[in-house]
Amino acid sequence: MSDVQDRSQASSRRSPEGVGTPVGAVDFAAWRAAQQAVIEQALSAWVRSDAPAGLGEAMRYAVLDGGKRLRPLLALAACEAVGGQAAVALRVGCALELIHAYSLVHDDMPCMDNDVLRRGKPTVHVRFGEAQALLVGDALQALAFELLLPGDGSVPDAMAVSLCRQLALAAGADGMAGGQAVDLASVGVALDQPALEAMHRLKTGALLQASVMMGASTGPLTAEAREQLAVYGAALGLAFQVVDDVLDVTADSATLGKTAGKDAAADKPTFVALMGLDAAQAYADRVLDQAHAALRRSGLPHTDTLHALADWVGQRAS
Amino acid sequence: MSDVQDRSQASSRRSPEGVGTPVGAVDFAAWRAAQQAVIEQALSAWVRSDAPAGLGEAMRYAVLDGGKRLRPLLALAACEAVGGQAAVALRVGCALELIHAYSLVHDDMPCMDNDVLRRGKPTVHVRFGEAQALLVGDALQALAFELLLPGDGSVPDAMAVSLCRQLALAAGADGMAGGQAVDLASVGVALDQPALEAMHRLKTGALLQASVMMGASTGPLTAEAREQLAVYGAALGLAFQVVDDVLDVTADSATLGKTAGKDAAADKPTFVALMGLDAAQAYADRVLDQAHAALRRSGLPHTDTLHALADWVGQRAS
Repeated sequence: MSDVQDRSQASSRRSPEGVGTPVGAVDFAAWRAAQQAVIEQALSAWVRSDAPAGLGEAMRYAVLDGGKRLRPLLALAACEAVGGQAAVALRVGCALELIHAYSLVHDDMPCMDNDVLRRGKPTVHVRFGEAQALLVGDALQALAFELLLPGDGSVPDAMAVSLCRQLALAAGADGMAGGQAVDLASVGVALDQPALEAMHRLKTGALLQASVMMGASTGPLTAEAREQLAVYGAALGLAFQVVDDVLDVTADSATLGKTAGKDAAADKPTFVALMGLDAAQAYADRVLDQAHAALRRSGLPHTDTLHALADWVGQRAS
Repeated sequence: MSDVQDRSQASSRRSPEGVGTPVGAVDFAAWRAAQQAVIEQALSAWVRSDAPAGLGEAMRYAVLDGGKRLRPLLALAACEAVGGQAAVALRVGCALELIHAYSLVHDDMPCMDNDVLRRGKPTVHVRFGEAQALLVGDALQALAFELLLPGDGSVPDAMAVSLCRQLALAAGADGMAGGQAVDLASVGVALDQPALEAMHRLKTGALLQASVMMGASTGPLTAEAREQLAVYGAALGLAFQVVDDVLDVTADSATLGKTAGKDAAADKPTFVALMGLDAAQAYADRVLDQAHAALRRSGLPHTDTLHALADWVGQRAS
């Protein structure tokens, strides 16, 4: 049986206990919309407007009213897969989204990608000035950790320690920030596929994988399930980036909500440049098959939503 | 008895148990030099050069071989005052120093203070470029949290949670980053003294106070001692800033290791502009008297080094 056939079975299968979310396309769309609303509400509550001198308003501008919220959705779905604490997973997801949002604010600045459009709006530095954009990113990173440490006992200490450590590692020099440094150094350099994948494993992969692993850290997890979820998260992260490169070529700026074609214009290495458009799309599909296969090997009963999220990453249009 | 007479008694008094550090001027200088060497060694071990694409080297450039290490010294002295865990306090101090170092890297960037000299060396963006400087700051913030979460059981979970929460609050929008936003918004604005102090309470005060409180969090602490240490930390933070403003006028760039006179040139509000040079120096001394008085009220037996650090802040030449 091929992975693809097997995947369609898995996606339509109810969990043995009957309590998992059944994920046909319609059900997943409904789940996603409902969770996105919950995430938006939580972010709005936690990114307060009262930080001084307009900083709070600028932080809210950077975070709210946009984005697919893929990282929070992954955290919530991974929590569901292990029967974890949903309230903690919501904090986890929002913390990850704040790290993601801060990285976009800093990435868009003139000294980095110098981009003026993000999620269909002027970027933060265009709207609020470069200095404020710098502070917005800095403050969002601190707030991400604060979210995991509410100080009210609602996140058990051992869990909070594990979550904060995973977040620090995924965001820092051995994760996202390190990947961005490699990205900077790669402009105009002919990376081969292993080097390109190594770069993305850090730049976007670390945070996406952490979304899965941190979400799963809100509940019990066998060593085997942990290992397979890590494979799922890594594959999903890679596929996400390959699809991103495809969309950079095939979609327009209005659909993307950000400037299309900018990677090619900036002479950045991409999977499309390396292997061509059709082969890149096919590669994304193959990598996603690996994600589905890892979920099946995990032995976890409630993985339907994680399967559906992998499908969504492969099919997204923006 | 005046605070000043009382202070000199406290500074020369051995602790009842005889295990505290006796702090005459010579003893304190020796303690400081020894601890600075320990801090430098720890930072060098924890800020590794192997982060990708030169990021690690740039992070080390930003952190090592310079600085008074006031925040780590405060953390170590506060740990000593409560009989806390010195190994944890060293992590605390280095985490605070990484936050401080990241803030300097970002502050020096062209969109903020646009400074080219720091600790007698070219600033990070001059040496490594703006994009790398941005990433250096971002990665140092994540590393600060990582230091408090070594993952080897050496920091008890409850303590790590408390420390990380304090760090996030001191660094974020309600602390340092918020204070910087106020600072940005204050250029050319005639702040009165309460507004100026409120700005500095966030911008530099939050992290200095956190240095004391986090250092003290490595050991047992009564509510009264906690309250008085908070007063000490706040007073020390304010005095530090007043002295900074005095030095900006009276010292030259070579002594400061950074550009002198830049606050006046940037039309930033300062204590010297507000009250004059002599009155500012006298105000710093009065505030430091409050710091000493709070230590005496704390009931803690081993506060000699904290007393000496307050004296040092008042007398520093750079």
